[in-house]
Amino acid sequence: MNPALSQALAHLLSDRFSQNTHLLHQHSHGESHHPAALPDAIAYVKTETELMNTVALCHQHRTPMVAFGAGTSVEGQVQALKGGVCIDFSLMNQILEINADDMNCVVEPGVTREQLNQALRDQGLFFPVDPGANATLGGMIATGASGTTTLLYGGMKHNTLALEAVLSNGSKITTGTAARKSSAGYNLTELLVGSEGTLALTSKARLKLYGIPEQTSAARVTFPSLQQAVNSVIEMIQCNLNLARMELLDQHALVAVNQYCKTEFATQPTLFLEFHGTTNSTQEQAKLAENICTAHKGSQFQYSMKEEHKRELWHARHNAYYAAIAKVHNGKGWVTDVCVPISKLAHCIEATQQDLQQAGLTIPIVGHVGDGNFHLLFSIPENDHKQLASAQQINKRLVARAHALGGTCTGEHGIGLGKRAYLIAEKGQNSVDLMATIKQALDPLNLLNPGKLFFEYTHLPGPVTHAR
Amino acid sequence: MNPALSQALAHLLSDRFSQNTHLLHQHSHGESHHPAALPDAIAYVKTETELMNTVALCHQHRTPMVAFGAGTSVEGQVQALKGGVCIDFSLMNQILEINADDMNCVVEPGVTREQLNQALRDQGLFFPVDPGANATLGGMIATGASGTTTLLYGGMKHNTLALEAVLSNGSKITTGTAARKSSAGYNLTELLVGSEGTLALTSKARLKLYGIPEQTSAARVTFPSLQQAVNSVIEMIQCNLNLARMELLDQHALVAVNQYCKTEFATQPTLFLEFHGTTNSTQEQAKLAENICTAHKGSQFQYSMKEEHKRELWHARHNAYYAAIAKVHNGKGWVTDVCVPISKLAHCIEATQQDLQQAGLTIPIVGHVGDGNFHLLFSIPENDHKQLASAQQINKRLVARAHALGGTCTGEHGIGLGKRAYLIAEKGQNSVDLMATIKQALDPLNLLNPGKLFFEYTHLPGPVTHAR
Repeated sequence: MNPALSQALAHLLSDRFSQNTHLLHQHSHGESHHPAALPDAIAYVKTETELMNTVALCHQHRTPMVAFGAGTSVEGQVQALKGGVCIDFSLMNQILEINADDMNCVVEPGVTREQLNQALRDQGLFFPVDPGANATLGGMIATGASGTTTLLYGGMKHNTLALEAVLSNGSKITTGTAARKSSAGYNLTELLVGSEGTLALTSKARLKLYGIPEQTSAARVTFPSLQQAVNSVIEMIQCNLNLARMELLDQHALVAVNQYCKTEFATQPTLFLEFHGTTNSTQEQAKLAENICTAHKGSQFQYSMKEEHKRELWHARHNAYYAAIAKVHNGKGWVTDVCVPISKLAHCIEATQQDLQQAGLTIPIVGHVGDGNFHLLFSIPENDHKQLASAQQINKRLVARAHALGGTCTGEHGIGLGKRAYLIAEKGQNSVDLMATIKQALDPLNLLNPGKLFFEYTHLPGPVTHAR
Repeated sequence: MNPALSQALAHLLSDRFSQNTHLLHQHSHGESHHPAALPDAIAYVKTETELMNTVALCHQHRTPMVAFGAGTSVEGQVQALKGGVCIDFSLMNQILEINADDMNCVVEPGVTREQLNQALRDQGLFFPVDPGANATLGGMIATGASGTTTLLYGGMKHNTLALEAVLSNGSKITTGTAARKSSAGYNLTELLVGSEGTLALTSKARLKLYGIPEQTSAARVTFPSLQQAVNSVIEMIQCNLNLARMELLDQHALVAVNQYCKTEFATQPTLFLEFHGTTNSTQEQAKLAENICTAHKGSQFQYSMKEEHKRELWHARHNAYYAAIAKVHNGKGWVTDVCVPISKLAHCIEATQQDLQQAGLTIPIVGHVGDGNFHLLFSIPENDHKQLASAQQINKRLVARAHALGGTCTGEHGIGLGKRAYLIAEKGQNSVDLMATIKQALDPLNLLNPGKLFFEYTHLPGPVTHAR
């Protein structure tokens, strides 16, 4: 790394600039099987001004920058492929505003979602996006994260009102206002949400908040087949049952959960449901949900408004990932992420289960089924290249299947390193070239998270001048 | 216009290519006071291939293109400032898919929202975005339109799942899939929604649909003051009362409505509410709404589930615009569009009312109050430059006030010609330069709706290389 840059950053950040090997390793990967890639240094920024100055210095020295939040990404988003400076946001974690009347807040990017919800609780408010991990909000914005509550509340795309962000040269932009809606100019907010740190670095985010519902109740129901579970979901959605959560676990996921959590759930395809509303309206929803599920041969519909029952249910669901990993000694998680139109979901899952069976694998499946998004939870021992290759093969066929059914290769984990080829298969070369054109216009030196989303373009496509 | 281009377009489109003066005039303006600006020709495209070929020909001949839908825009979006070809989408109006199980549809851009809802009705589905006018969906996408139901269902930003669009050179991109969510690459869908025909022309749109609610009921309640009406709204939102519509009319709007519709509404600040849900849940919502409004001195709370009462209420609300125009002989509508955080809404409206009073004007105000968006409904005789200047002055102060309160100059009408200076005031020069950089990268010859959103840049800012 350029000594002039190290010196300047050390001068700027003092002991919050580090080249400690242990820390470099810690910042070389997220929660995925992608090979680690070390940055040359870490800059722990604390303020927007420090962030702008850090970026301006890196720009001046033509040095790559990779943003780092909680390190919970699963598609290799934080790997420093070209070395350079890892900008760690964990100390830039102030909640700057909570506006109860306007139901929004302003946070720095290093605030985690649990930290935010803790601060909101005694005002009767909450931030709904829940990807499982206690990610930073800056990371969730970069990934375009969503999760179990997206069905009712939407993901980061729907809940990010405005951003302040630093461009590759250190200058700052403002993408929106505190108004709940606007038609003023290009939607830069949404362009940045999901751009995985390749276009700009968030310095402040204004997020939507919601009132904690008067009543939250939960239910669980088992089905003879996946098809029947999914058909129930389709019908519930068509009946305007605005459930907050609709999670599907297949039989293998329940086996893993029972082992891991010492529970005794029936090992059949199971829906976990959550209802938000008034006491009356949640009971009404639950009754209608039960009728629909029963008509589709669902049984053992268990409904509860009691806090301990709800906790128990969601404890099981939230632990499915860890349960799946724990099945394998020294296993590491490797998670697929397709999302298809829900009318195609049962078919997509069943064909995938057959695929797994043929490969002699029993891999738990969990799904945000109301959105058509599901995950295979592989657990692969480190350095077991054969199992990794097998998971990659299954995923390759799964993505092709999702594309054939009108779906996407990633519902919520992003492209990162792992899905660059799938992005082209999904959107077409024209669209990916257009994305690269935008990248080129905003970051012409390719300093922001280089190598992510796109393969290296020998010749960047440049502005749209010739018909392609 | 270049004769080679006319010839080529006439060859391509036969009698659907026209240079008829009457038609050119018809296509020279939307529903606004902005001066008309005639295109040189009109291309009525019927298919995506015709659209691509038309654009490629215009690109080849370096000729500007302006998209035209129903001509209902109010900020000068369709004015052909540099002449060129007006691409009229009214014949490209097929509904290509209605997917009831997946609650989405695929439409061509010339389909109007009423045409779509007509086609959906017998499947128990509807498309909620309602800007008032029977606009085309392509136009609503271009403008980032919203309206009375945005509170519950969101605007075009939230309800456009994916687009196919033609770039300035005639090549085509696909921005999304049929999945309900995705984190695959830059959000090109949202970049195009609200880009006012300056980046690409929509050739197909996949839109979200909703089930027609079991019950729709409506209420009306009057308040001694605007502040009390708005405080009721804030409290209803905080109590998670998910109303579908919350519309505010001030006393002047009600005077105009009573005159125009021969109604006898009390001429006080009035909220019009609409509840969507099951019979029980809408009744529960209405009861809670009544309690909240009463606590804020609301009176004459009238609730009805009867179709004729609801029609009567919304007839009055929908006619407020026409009622305001009809107040003035030969008046033409001139509508403001700020949107502020709702905690600032009462203050913003009251300060604006004082402003109007000082100017000796009684201008009706209507608001999508749950979103913090409201409109002054000026009615100005054509060629009355004094009244126009007065409206512009009021609007200038109104926009400055909205900006000072953390709001936006346009909640739903867009920037077009009329708000280019306000866009810079709102987002800052850096952000608008960035938008222009994107425009430059995607349309380097500045052929798509030139002159809109941005003032002419003597030097386009070019890629982000120097700190600004």
